[in-house]
Amino acid sequence: MTETIISADIVESENEKRRAELTRDYASLGERLDRRGIAIDAIRDKVAAFKVAVPSWGVGTGGTRFARFPGAGEPRDIFDKIEDCAVIQQLTQATPKFSLHIPWDKADANRLKQAASRFGLGFDAMNSNTFSDARDQKLSYKFGSLSHADAATRQQAVEHNLECIEIGKTIGSKALTVWIGDGSNFPGQVNFTRQFERYLDAMKAVYAELPDDWRLFTEHKMYEPAFYSTVVQDWGTNYLIAQELGPKAHCLVDLGHHAPNVNIEMIVARLIQFGKLGGFHFNDSKYGDDDLDAGSIDPYRLFLIFNELVDAELNNTKGFDPAHMLDQSHNVTDPIESLMLSAIEVQRAYAAALLVDRKALEGFQDANDALMATQTLKTAYRTDVEPILAMARLDSGGAIDPVAAYRAAGYRAKVAAERPAVAGGSGGIV
Amino acid sequence: MTETIISADIVESENEKRRAELTRDYASLGERLDRRGIAIDAIRDKVAAFKVAVPSWGVGTGGTRFARFPGAGEPRDIFDKIEDCAVIQQLTQATPKFSLHIPWDKADANRLKQAASRFGLGFDAMNSNTFSDARDQKLSYKFGSLSHADAATRQQAVEHNLECIEIGKTIGSKALTVWIGDGSNFPGQVNFTRQFERYLDAMKAVYAELPDDWRLFTEHKMYEPAFYSTVVQDWGTNYLIAQELGPKAHCLVDLGHHAPNVNIEMIVARLIQFGKLGGFHFNDSKYGDDDLDAGSIDPYRLFLIFNELVDAELNNTKGFDPAHMLDQSHNVTDPIESLMLSAIEVQRAYAAALLVDRKALEGFQDANDALMATQTLKTAYRTDVEPILAMARLDSGGAIDPVAAYRAAGYRAKVAAERPAVAGGSGGIV
Amino acid sequence: MTETIISADIVESENEKRRAELTRDYASLGERLDRRGIAIDAIRDKVAAFKVAVPSWGVGTGGTRFARFPGAGEPRDIFDKIEDCAVIQQLTQATPKFSLHIPWDKADANRLKQAASRFGLGFDAMNSNTFSDARDQKLSYKFGSLSHADAATRQQAVEHNLECIEIGKTIGSKALTVWIGDGSNFPGQVNFTRQFERYLDAMKAVYAELPDDWRLFTEHKMYEPAFYSTVVQDWGTNYLIAQELGPKAHCLVDLGHHAPNVNIEMIVARLIQFGKLGGFHFNDSKYGDDDLDAGSIDPYRLFLIFNELVDAELNNTKGFDPAHMLDQSHNVTDPIESLMLSAIEVQRAYAAALLVDRKALEGFQDANDALMATQTLKTAYRTDVEPILAMARLDSGGAIDPVAAYRAAGYRAKVAAERPAVAGGSGGIV
Amino acid sequence: MTETIISADIVESENEKRRAELTRDYASLGERLDRRGIAIDAIRDKVAAFKVAVPSWGVGTGGTRFARFPGAGEPRDIFDKIEDCAVIQQLTQATPKFSLHIPWDKADANRLKQAASRFGLGFDAMNSNTFSDARDQKLSYKFGSLSHADAATRQQAVEHNLECIEIGKTIGSKALTVWIGDGSNFPGQVNFTRQFERYLDAMKAVYAELPDDWRLFTEHKMYEPAFYSTVVQDWGTNYLIAQELGPKAHCLVDLGHHAPNVNIEMIVARLIQFGKLGGFHFNDSKYGDDDLDAGSIDPYRLFLIFNELVDAELNNTKGFDPAHMLDQSHNVTDPIESLMLSAIEVQRAYAAALLVDRKALEGFQDANDALMATQTLKTAYRTDVEPILAMARLDSGGAIDPVAAYRAAGYRAKVAAERPAVAGGSGGIV
Repeated sequence: MTETIISADIVESENEKRRAELTRDYASLGERLDRRGIAIDAIRDKVAAFKVAVPSWGVGTGGTRFARFPGAGEPRDIFDKIEDCAVIQQLTQATPKFSLHIPWDKADANRLKQAASRFGLGFDAMNSNTFSDARDQKLSYKFGSLSHADAATRQQAVEHNLECIEIGKTIGSKALTVWIGDGSNFPGQVNFTRQFERYLDAMKAVYAELPDDWRLFTEHKMYEPAFYSTVVQDWGTNYLIAQELGPKAHCLVDLGHHAPNVNIEMIVARLIQFGKLGGFHFNDSKYGDDDLDAGSIDPYRLFLIFNELVDAELNNTKGFDPAHMLDQSHNVTDPIESLMLSAIEVQRAYAAALLVDRKALEGFQDANDALMATQTLKTAYRTDVEPILAMARLDSGGAIDPVAAYRAAGYRAKVAAERPAVAGGSGGIV
Repeated sequence: MTETIISADIVESENEKRRAELTRDYASLGERLDRRGIAIDAIRDKVAAFKVAVPSWGVGTGGTRFARFPGAGEPRDIFDKIEDCAVIQQLTQATPKFSLHIPWDKADANRLKQAASRFGLGFDAMNSNTFSDARDQKLSYKFGSLSHADAATRQQAVEHNLECIEIGKTIGSKALTVWIGDGSNFPGQVNFTRQFERYLDAMKAVYAELPDDWRLFTEHKMYEPAFYSTVVQDWGTNYLIAQELGPKAHCLVDLGHHAPNVNIEMIVARLIQFGKLGGFHFNDSKYGDDDLDAGSIDPYRLFLIFNELVDAELNNTKGFDPAHMLDQSHNVTDPIESLMLSAIEVQRAYAAALLVDRKALEGFQDANDALMATQTLKTAYRTDVEPILAMARLDSGGAIDPVAAYRAAGYRAKVAAERPAVAGGSGGIV
Repeated sequence: MTETIISADIVESENEKRRAELTRDYASLGERLDRRGIAIDAIRDKVAAFKVAVPSWGVGTGGTRFARFPGAGEPRDIFDKIEDCAVIQQLTQATPKFSLHIPWDKADANRLKQAASRFGLGFDAMNSNTFSDARDQKLSYKFGSLSHADAATRQQAVEHNLECIEIGKTIGSKALTVWIGDGSNFPGQVNFTRQFERYLDAMKAVYAELPDDWRLFTEHKMYEPAFYSTVVQDWGTNYLIAQELGPKAHCLVDLGHHAPNVNIEMIVARLIQFGKLGGFHFNDSKYGDDDLDAGSIDPYRLFLIFNELVDAELNNTKGFDPAHMLDQSHNVTDPIESLMLSAIEVQRAYAAALLVDRKALEGFQDANDALMATQTLKTAYRTDVEPILAMARLDSGGAIDPVAAYRAAGYRAKVAAERPAVAGGSGGIV
Repeated sequence: MTETIISADIVESENEKRRAELTRDYASLGERLDRRGIAIDAIRDKVAAFKVAVPSWGVGTGGTRFARFPGAGEPRDIFDKIEDCAVIQQLTQATPKFSLHIPWDKADANRLKQAASRFGLGFDAMNSNTFSDARDQKLSYKFGSLSHADAATRQQAVEHNLECIEIGKTIGSKALTVWIGDGSNFPGQVNFTRQFERYLDAMKAVYAELPDDWRLFTEHKMYEPAFYSTVVQDWGTNYLIAQELGPKAHCLVDLGHHAPNVNIEMIVARLIQFGKLGGFHFNDSKYGDDDLDAGSIDPYRLFLIFNELVDAELNNTKGFDPAHMLDQSHNVTDPIESLMLSAIEVQRAYAAALLVDRKALEGFQDANDALMATQTLKTAYRTDVEPILAMARLDSGGAIDPVAAYRAAGYRAKVAAERPAVAGGSGGIV
């Protein structure tokens, strides 16, 4: 049986405080939705079935190039991280899988599987790292990895990715996510074409070893850590990669990796249309790759992305099966709290998108009634679906108010006492 | 024999004033280049062979949505425009072709050919217009053209493009450029996928009628006139279009049509690598699609683009044959002056890119010597190639200083007297 | 007694259809708010008292530099515009004032006052126009107006503003809004400092004639129509102007006039803190000055701005009295519908901001509990306040669903029959 | 007598290789400038007198939040850094001063002065650091420093700044530069107004202790490390600070700290006009605060900034006396090489700006001849002033080609042998 970290009594007593109001609010919302022809229980069931993965590196406190201010009780290794992930899953019931980052999370495969299964957790995509040098690494990635000018360095990066696949096979992962920082800081530093050819060659070597039931996700990013050019700079290049590699290769969309003002939901639609959307790294941002909590800056944008996803889901679009993961940097909050609320925020966008009257929308679109079309989206977006989300959690054994339950349980103070403070870094932030 | 509009005497007397200094500067620069292993005459010959087309609509004064402030002597019709284009070609010898915009430039094909050949001019790509409604047009493009929800409106837009091909065939054009403003102003106004499917279907109908020796250029643009989404919003979508349509379809890059901060030279490199670079609309910009004079805001960026083009040229990259055209809005300058200097600015970037020591550059790149690699570009860029450009003009029968000759000839005052002032618009600005 | 344009019967019958549900939803929301310690009636009263002005030019169809696609029944003159404004006010009860733009709206003062008072409307700020040339204007603004290099042109622009004040005095306006397009398109075209000195001198001449009970609003904008530099480019320069001119001068914030990614709510806070916030031009945008409907692209941003405004209101911040106006370009919608929904969207942001638990927020801020602080805002924002807005309208004599009532009344078809279609422009868009 | 680190023989032998060509190129350029009415020697003298400071932290290898890839022979402490700075000054003769960052560069004042004077170096502005926690610091800056909600933390930050002043007084510095990362990552995390009030109060306490012959520089930055709001986010807020503090307070402009597309040269002009320009942190950037080498991405922008500076210099603008410093992050180059070339690049922009025919420019501006005005700038910018810069170096005892001399001397290999590799950070990057 699955072990829980937060005492069931605490969860129950916290839920008890809120159950009556939730029941009433759920009924009241249900009545309002019923008038719009929507069955609230069906929405709740869909939300309950919607999951988003947590990145192992997300449970540590993030930082910037200027400083990292550690929090209390930071996880010391992957096993501490698994416990933190288990808390998130226990209280939200939205995050049954977590994602490993190699080499930081390397450990004995059996121990990993055991630790995860103890809490009923599974393994999401494997993440390789060739954007920093690991201790005792033979060749440096200072000037690139999979696209490095030197063949031996590229080979080392390929082998690292193959190792990630091997680890993943033993623990039951089904995907490899490749994000690299390769690029250049100065005009002329690299030849764009030769660099991309080298990248494609290296990725073909990785792809060749990918099991048949795996998917390969490549992730584009406009800039940082490279500040003049980046090899996989946008979805155009990402699409070319997926096309060159083959049917198991798909594009991963991190919401913070685009140029200012870009219409991301449209990129999502294009990738769906051409069968190459692999999945998401959810977060939010105002300036660059700020890696803030999902939905914290522009929640309507998140909704509009889910509007595309729900559209594809309802249309049974061929090959549509995106992976969902959070990818954030928690610099000033308790990472567990941020990840719980961010998972819920993603569910919120999904739930609201499910409320869109798509038949009416299509009619307004065909009639060029822009005003009513956009109001149709707004009507769904404005609906406060919190009762649905909370009921889905409650029904699944989670907490009505995960942060309240988490704080009531005193988990952070407890691990702060157990885990000595570490000054160093908590692994890379992609 | 080709007729000239500016008196040969004036050109000659203006050149005479500058010939001695130019000769001296050319020799001095030649000596300095010789030390770098570069033969100045070879560069001059390449520059002399480099041409860029002028858009017919460029010779009228442009404007913004707030106002258009007409200039003196604006062209009243395509025949006036041809005369203005002839002046630009006469003095710069860099612009032997101009590009028609239909319906504004519609006229009897024989008269068009006659008017152009009188000045030794040829016809560049045909440009269709479905981003505004023409007088007496049956169906409006208010809600789109090639991607309109209504089949009849799409068909009308297709037929307009087919008409452009027909006109082009009679006058000797070899390409059709399609830019449309289709998109949406509000989330939900259109379904991205259905809209793009309609666009692709319409474009396939146009492509089907394209002569075998023609090319089809599609042009992407991030936004404006649509302010939430645009069908062909970036090079990723543009590439998908070219791929879907076939080998005669290529992507056109307008320098002002990208998101803030985007690395345009890298997009150019990608399109070259995948055989889909069709050509350019040159201009410069600081904020949005400002349509300022080429090289006026960020001349180094223009150089970096030409660095890619020269690289492909020297590598004999398969299928590399980009079309060059200016596309600017001249709101506060004499359009003829701006076009002359912009054509020269494009040649300047080309000339400087030819000076790059590519063997040394490749060595620095392979050695990850970022500093020396970027300095190699800077050394070429910093070289003041004006004597080369001027000598190329002089040798070809143009003016050493085209603006000085133009002003000396009093052309603007002359046409101001002949052409009555018009308050209305001067055609669309793409 | 105030005359109404939409038949009271239609409004009543439309309201009747929705009254029962509204009553129930209002009660249900009231109960939920009550649990949070909020009295819904008090919020409704504040919303009912909140007003936003409509710009006269907003009721015409807008356009871009590429095209303007007229709508049916566009207003032919200021008196048609007043009728359209009356419809907006009748159905929303949120827009009792409208704003004139001179010279387009010039008319006999008595006729203006009579036309407005017939519908119970008042006059908001006067808007001058020196960003385009009026018919028969002596000197052109092609190269600037209040900052023009030529003293006579500056004087002409000053006199135009003085005329606007004079007109305003006769009709009861209490403010002058000055937005100009002056700037430059090329580096070197103007000397920034000399140009700004000329601007300040001209504005001092305008300020000198401002009645004591008037305010002067200056409006900054990053770019467009000038594409290299703009005299009043940002809030920093705008603040300097207000400071140089004196206590009656304040800064106007148009939401679409900022650089990409800028935190506008913070600018608002700074201007409030230093006593120089004059008011707003509300709209929304994704790329540049897109002039889309308020709240249509990023509704949370609008809420965050109102979060600052409500904070200042509740703190009785000295000198805090911002003017509210819509300023949008309606290119693809019925302008009346867009303005009605935009006025409501502004009220929605205000209502939601009133729901913020400010005592709790302050506590979280002082405790550096970033997560709970931001959730406090989100809780308010997520509340669907539509029943409050609708009840405020209903209680004031407006429509529960203004667009439904408007469409039921067939107003657009009626005026389309009365007002002949015009191809020309509908006045400037600020 | 001043000690040199690079052997004079090597410098001399490297210079000898290039002297003849430089002499010839200088003469040839002199002749061309003479035709434009410019005396080359006067320009050379001005360039020779133009200096830019080097930041102590700049000689270490920089990094990103993802990784830092150390270079060989990195300085271990401030005394190593001083030696590296001495090399830069010896070869360029452009950087006689360097700037300390406290606490990293804390050391015995006498030792500091001795180390600096040994190489003829002086101390530029003092830089405080409250954007990261120093070892053994009592209160954390995780949630802010000078604007922290907690008074004791603010006081600690004030005292740190006062300590910087004290250190500076002992070593002969005359300015304090304050840049902080204070801001917020989430809407609602802080109250903008209260936070800014706290900041102003703290800064007043610092200002009160500033010696009369010192200046206080405050530096604005749009974002990073805070990703939703930043206390000193732009020049508008920076100006308010300088105004509130008093006449010794001035605004520092870091070129990479602005929103996308912002016209920085115009901000510079405004600050000059209102007597508040303190100085610069030079660097270049394409996306955010990329901290790339000055002039490496957009050299024309750097020129346009110097166009403003030269204008003010020639006009003897009251109070105009900007401080010049480099502030860059050298992630992929040898920091010494980058700093040498960046100092030269700043001089290059200055030299070119000196060549602008300002009388002609003013005439074109007054005549609204935008084309000739911008060409006047371009003519100056296009002039390859390298012979002037090299001659200024040579005449001052530096190297004609500093990078060549540096590489010939083998300095990096030498210090790599002496200084053991360190994995850790190299101090903050502002």
